Amino acid sequence: MLAKRESGITPTSSMRLRMEAFIKEQQQDIVRELEKIDGKRFKVDNWDRAEGGGGISCVLQDGNVFEKAGVNISIVYGNLPRAAVQRMRVNHKALDADVESLPFFAAGLSLVLHPNNPMAATVHLNYRYFETANADGTTNTWWFGGGTDLTPSYLFDEDAIHFHRTIKDACDKHDKSYYPRFKKWCDEYFSVKHRNESRGVGGIFFDDLDESEKDQENLFAYVQDCLKSFLPAYLPLIEKRKDMPFTEVEKQWQQLRRGRYVEFNLVHDRGTSFGLNTPGARVESILMSLPLTARWQYMHEPEKGSREERLVSILREPREWV
Amino acid sequence: MLAKRESGITPTSSMRLRMEAFIKEQQQDIVRELEKIDGKRFKVDNWDRAEGGGGISCVLQDGNVFEKAGVNISIVYGNLPRAAVQRMRVNHKALDADVESLPFFAAGLSLVLHPNNPMAATVHLNYRYFETANADGTTNTWWFGGGTDLTPSYLFDEDAIHFHRTIKDACDKHDKSYYPRFKKWCDEYFSVKHRNESRGVGGIFFDDLDESEKDQENLFAYVQDCLKSFLPAYLPLIEKRKDMPFTEVEKQWQQLRRGRYVEFNLVHDRGTSFGLNTPGARVESILMSLPLTARWQYMHEPEKGSREERLVSILREPREWV
Repeated sequence: MLAKRESGITPTSSMRLRMEAFIKEQQQDIVRELEKIDGKRFKVDNWDRAEGGGGISCVLQDGNVFEKAGVNISIVYGNLPRAAVQRMRVNHKALDADVESLPFFAAGLSLVLHPNNPMAATVHLNYRYFETANADGTTNTWWFGGGTDLTPSYLFDEDAIHFHRTIKDACDKHDKSYYPRFKKWCDEYFSVKHRNESRGVGGIFFDDLDESEKDQENLFAYVQDCLKSFLPAYLPLIEKRKDMPFTEVEKQWQQLRRGRYVEFNLVHDRGTSFGLNTPGARVESILMSLPLTARWQYMHEPEKGSREERLVSILREPREWV
Repeated sequence: MLAKRESGITPTSSMRLRMEAFIKEQQQDIVRELEKIDGKRFKVDNWDRAEGGGGISCVLQDGNVFEKAGVNISIVYGNLPRAAVQRMRVNHKALDADVESLPFFAAGLSLVLHPNNPMAATVHLNYRYFETANADGTTNTWWFGGGTDLTPSYLFDEDAIHFHRTIKDACDKHDKSYYPRFKKWCDEYFSVKHRNESRGVGGIFFDDLDESEKDQENLFAYVQDCLKSFLPAYLPLIEKRKDMPFTEVEKQWQQLRRGRYVEFNLVHDRGTSFGLNTPGARVESILMSLPLTARWQYMHEPEKGSREERLVSILREPREWV
């Protein structure tokens, strides 16, 4: 996709190329490890975006372990229309509001895994590098964003602890303030506001990390370590839970939780909204984050004292796991 | 719920009371007819809204004929916060932008029926009366909105024709321009924009019908006839389709179409968005519109020349049914 050069921005700046190379390598590593666990192969789709750039979507559906697993990268560039710039300004104050359109470049890796077994948690990860450019093609602003979070249907405290511990270790190598700040940001961001509950037991989330935080080199190193900590954070959990016995009732509870996942992604998630509103977006890649199946039951209430009720009460009051 | 009188607005104006009485009566008629068809009873929930008003939700789940059927009325009043007023102004230009909050009253009936049988279409209906008030409680603006639309997984042309014909007859009694205008508006509104397809085969949709259109008495009479035409428009269809044979593959196609329904409702529907953003909203009543179950399959394409492919091609280019 690097062959494409139609738009105002071309991916020639050094960080653009380094981020692209890094997420490509990580995509391959992650897909290889997940295939070992599942036993089935990912379907690999290379796609081009008419407006500039493209991506590689790797999706495994109806697997032995995963109901649906998507590991996507995209490297897109072109011009953001005025409406999209206005929406982005809410969270990126440095953007100029008075433009008809804005040349941009974005490279990111996104991953969502929905396991079959209700005892195994859904996991999401996204790391991205974003640039806007001046009319002459020079970089105007740049930032990194991303994070990862865990969404169990049945909560095993030790899993949440391991997941958070692994991420915290990656953060602490760079800045002791990162984990507490970005853990809190994650709890705030992945909130299904209309339900007054979190999507899951969190992880980290950050956006708009730019030179006001640290220099580009340091931030890139941090994002690299975050992404590399994904397999050690998640693989032990899926290994432990993928073959656990479960009942029909537990499967149905998982389906209800999948419904909440859909609600968050379609109603509140900025990434999904940005994607669906970007001209020429590849909808199938954006919506690979949705589970294969979901359920909405009117007025469903978990039984008093049940594991299901405990999960919901924890989602209402996010806790410290490490 | 009329007993509540805490907010700035109380439901005392004549049109408020008449609309409330009308939708209550219609809710009972519709529920009674649907129970005859299904054989199971609706669960009836009366609810109050702390901020003012309340409603009656009638929901039938896991029925013989309906996977999920909701027939709800709500009569709510209170103050819209600034953010909600700003959002509404996009479609209701008469609203004053410079207010911190806006006293409002809204009474409406909403209905969504998702049948089990994939040959039977999902149907949606909503008619509502809306008022905003001045600080002294007198009416500032008022309008009617609403419509009804049909969403088949398997399209029977005769069903779409009957549905549209019945609605058109109700419209034509009042104004020959209504059906063509509101049919077009429906096609535009119920568009799953990111998929470039309509949610279904349409019906009618209108909003902001106020004194610039016709006087209140005439508009109320029109809305009454629209709502009363629902049972004659839909009952013959469900009767014909509810016991048709179907295959597993057809059931799965229905589940995929349910997924698109969820996408429209959560990403694009203004009513859902207004509901979820209204303080003290009853989320379970708003989201009863979602199907019991839905499915998202990566890169699913209907077979060439199949009924599924024909449906999608019609959803890409809405047609005239009468």
